[in-house]
Amino acid sequence: MLGKYLDNVRAKSPLIHNITNYVTVNDCANILLACGASPIMSDDCGEVEEITSICGGLNINIGTLNKETIPAMLLAGKKANELGHPIILDPVGAGASALRTETAKRLLDELKFTVIRGNISEIKTLAVGSGSTKGVDANVADAVTEDTLEGVVAFAKEFSKATGTVIAITGATDIVADANRAFVITNGHPVMARITGSGCMLTAMTAAYITANSDNVLEATAAAVCAMGLCGEKAYDTTAKNHAGNSSFRNYLIDEIYRLDESELDKGARYTIV
Amino acid sequence: MLGKYLDNVRAKSPLIHNITNYVTVNDCANILLACGASPIMSDDCGEVEEITSICGGLNINIGTLNKETIPAMLLAGKKANELGHPIILDPVGAGASALRTETAKRLLDELKFTVIRGNISEIKTLAVGSGSTKGVDANVADAVTEDTLEGVVAFAKEFSKATGTVIAITGATDIVADANRAFVITNGHPVMARITGSGCMLTAMTAAYITANSDNVLEATAAAVCAMGLCGEKAYDTTAKNHAGNSSFRNYLIDEIYRLDESELDKGARYTIV
Amino acid sequence: MLGKYLDNVRAKSPLIHNITNYVTVNDCANILLACGASPIMSDDCGEVEEITSICGGLNINIGTLNKETIPAMLLAGKKANELGHPIILDPVGAGASALRTETAKRLLDELKFTVIRGNISEIKTLAVGSGSTKGVDANVADAVTEDTLEGVVAFAKEFSKATGTVIAITGATDIVADANRAFVITNGHPVMARITGSGCMLTAMTAAYITANSDNVLEATAAAVCAMGLCGEKAYDTTAKNHAGNSSFRNYLIDEIYRLDESELDKGARYTIV
Repeated sequence: MLGKYLDNVRAKSPLIHNITNYVTVNDCANILLACGASPIMSDDCGEVEEITSICGGLNINIGTLNKETIPAMLLAGKKANELGHPIILDPVGAGASALRTETAKRLLDELKFTVIRGNISEIKTLAVGSGSTKGVDANVADAVTEDTLEGVVAFAKEFSKATGTVIAITGATDIVADANRAFVITNGHPVMARITGSGCMLTAMTAAYITANSDNVLEATAAAVCAMGLCGEKAYDTTAKNHAGNSSFRNYLIDEIYRLDESELDKGARYTIV
Repeated sequence: MLGKYLDNVRAKSPLIHNITNYVTVNDCANILLACGASPIMSDDCGEVEEITSICGGLNINIGTLNKETIPAMLLAGKKANELGHPIILDPVGAGASALRTETAKRLLDELKFTVIRGNISEIKTLAVGSGSTKGVDANVADAVTEDTLEGVVAFAKEFSKATGTVIAITGATDIVADANRAFVITNGHPVMARITGSGCMLTAMTAAYITANSDNVLEATAAAVCAMGLCGEKAYDTTAKNHAGNSSFRNYLIDEIYRLDESELDKGARYTIV
Repeated sequence: MLGKYLDNVRAKSPLIHNITNYVTVNDCANILLACGASPIMSDDCGEVEEITSICGGLNINIGTLNKETIPAMLLAGKKANELGHPIILDPVGAGASALRTETAKRLLDELKFTVIRGNISEIKTLAVGSGSTKGVDANVADAVTEDTLEGVVAFAKEFSKATGTVIAITGATDIVADANRAFVITNGHPVMARITGSGCMLTAMTAAYITANSDNVLEATAAAVCAMGLCGEKAYDTTAKNHAGNSSFRNYLIDEIYRLDESELDKGARYTIV
C-alpha cells in the first residue's frame, strides 16, 4: 500500500531545492507545501551548491532553461550527487529544441539521477532520440494505448536498466519503472492536460516523496504519481460541481494534495505491477 | 458574428511561442490552454528560433524585458517573419522608461507585427511619443471617453495604416482597428484593472486567435477582445455572488474563457464597426 | 487606530517598484492591487533608476537573487534614497547561503531602508550573524514564544536603533519596532505558513502602506501586518467552510485584502504596544 510514503513526507517535511522554470514555479512551491514538504528556489551559480547542501533533495526542471541556469543545474546536481541526495529530472520539451535535448542529455551524462519524469515523447527523446515532442506536450503518435502498453513498459524497464534511474512516463496511463518492475497507473483525468504545470508539479512532489522515502524510490515515485492522479479526479469533481474551469481546477488540485491522507491514497490508488 | 473565430482556435489548437514577463506568465499559459491553444515559453537566444519554428504564432511581451531577452525577441521575431507566422506585440510600460520605449520601437522597426495590443498610453508612446504611462497603467489624461472616441479611432486607423499592423487599444472602451475599419467594443468590467495580467492574458489569447484565423486578423483580434471582456463580465458576476475579490476573479476569468462557446460569444459580444 | 493607514493607501494609490523573486511575483502584484496600490516589476539595470523615479516606493526582495538583479537592487535603491522614497527589504533566506547573507548585508550597508521585514532567523542573521535559517523558513530554535518575547522585543528595538530602520519580525507573533516602541501583534493563522509568499506579499503590501503614510512608518507597518494577519484569519474561515486547501487559501487571502475596510481593520487588529 502506498499511503505510508505520503505519511513519511508529512513526518519528515523534506526541504527540496528547485531549479525550475518561471512558468509554474509558484504552483511547484505550493504543491510542495501542500504535500507536507518545504520548497526553496535558487538558480544562481553563486549559491546553488550551498543551498542544495542544506536541502534533502533536488528537483531539476528545464522548462525555461537558459545560459545562466544550465551551469547552475550542473553545479547543484554534482553537489547533490556528492552528498547522496535524491535528484529528479523533468526534461520539459526535450525534443522541441536542440538546446533542450542536448541539455537533458548532458545532465544525464554528468549527473546520476534518482528519477526521471516526463511525457512519453520527452522520455523517448532522451532514450532513443526518436520522440517527436509537440512543444511541451506529448505527440499523439507517441501515445501510450492498450496496444502499445506492453512495449512502452519494456522500453521503460530497459531505459531504467541502462541509466540506473527510476523512469516515470506520465500521460493518460502512467508507467513508473525500474529495471525489473513497473507500476501501470490509471489514476488521473484529462483536464490535467488543460492546465500548465501538471507535470512540473508532479515532478516537484515526487522529489519530496523520494527524499522522504529514499530506500523505496520506485514505490515512492508510484505513490506520488497515484496521489497526483487521484487528486486530479477529485479536483475534477469539484470543478464540474461548481461549473468552473481550468484555473479553478488548478487550485482544487493543489487543495486536494493538501487534504489527502494515507487511507484515501491507499483506497484510491489504481495500479497494477507488471 | 465572431464566435466562429473561437471555434477555429479550438479546432486548430495552435501552439503559441511566448517571450513574456515573469509576472503573469502562468496566467498567460493557462488562458492559452483555456481558449483551446497550447503555450510554450522560451526566451534563450540558443533556442528561440527553433522553438518559434515549431509553433504557429509568436507573442512578444516586454513586461520584464532585460538584456538577455531583448535579443531573443529579435531573433524569434525575425524567424517568425521569415516563416510567415503571426506575431503580436504587447508593449507593456512603453513610456515608463527609455529602455521600454526604445525596445518597443526597435521591435517595430526590425519586425513586422500582425497585431499590437496595449493601453492608450502605450500605443500613443509608440505612435507619437506623447503617451504618459503611469507605470504599466494608462494615464487618466489619455483615457478614451465619449468625447475623445472619434479622435482615438482615427488615430488607431492612421497608426494601423502607417505600420500595416492591426492596432488593439484596450481600456474601458476597446478599439481594434486596421487602416479602414475599427471595432469599438464595450464588453468588460472595471475589476479587470484590479488584477495583474488582464492585458498580458488578452495579448496571449489574441496570438492564438490570429494564428487560427490568419486570413481574418482584424475580426479575430476583435473576437479575442470581446471574449475577454464578456468573460470579465461573467467572472465579475461570480465574484460578486461569492463575496470574493480580485484573486478569485482572476481564476473565474480564466474559467469563463475555458467554458465560453461560439454561441455565447456571438450573443454577448457588444461592438459597433466604424 | 490603524484603519486610517489603509484608507490612505486606497486614497493615494501609490505606485510601487518591485525587484522581487519569480516565485511569488504574481501574488505580490495582485496583493498590491488588492490593497489599492499599483505594482510595477522591473529588474534590468538599464531601467531600474528611471522606473523607481516614477514610483512612490521600492520593494527589494532577495528571494531568487542573481548576479543580474543584485546590481539592479543597488542602483534602484540608491536612486530611491536620493529621491527620499520609502524602501523596504525582504531578506528572504538570509542565513541559508553566503550569497544571500552577504547580499542582504551589502544592501544594508549601501542603502538606507525604511523598513526591514523578515522571519526571526533572517533578522537575527542580519543583526548578529547567528540566525539559523531553514531554507526560507524560520528555524524552530529561533521561534518567538511567550518566554522569549521580551528578549526579542528588546532585540528588535536595538536593531532598529542601530540601523534607523523599522524592524518587522513576523511569525506566530509579530513584532514591529522602532528604537522606542514595539507593536506586538497576534493576528494571523498557522495556515499562512503553508502557502508560498505570505511573507513576500506582506512585504510588498507594507511598501504600499509606508509609501502612503510616510510620516507614520511604524504605525503604517503595524497596520499592514495586522491587515495581513486579520485577512489570514478570515481566509482560513472560508477555507475551512469550503473544505479547501492551501491554494484556495491563497486566493481567499488576497480576496480579503481586496475587501478589507477601515472599520474592520480597526476592530480586528489585535496588538499591544510595549
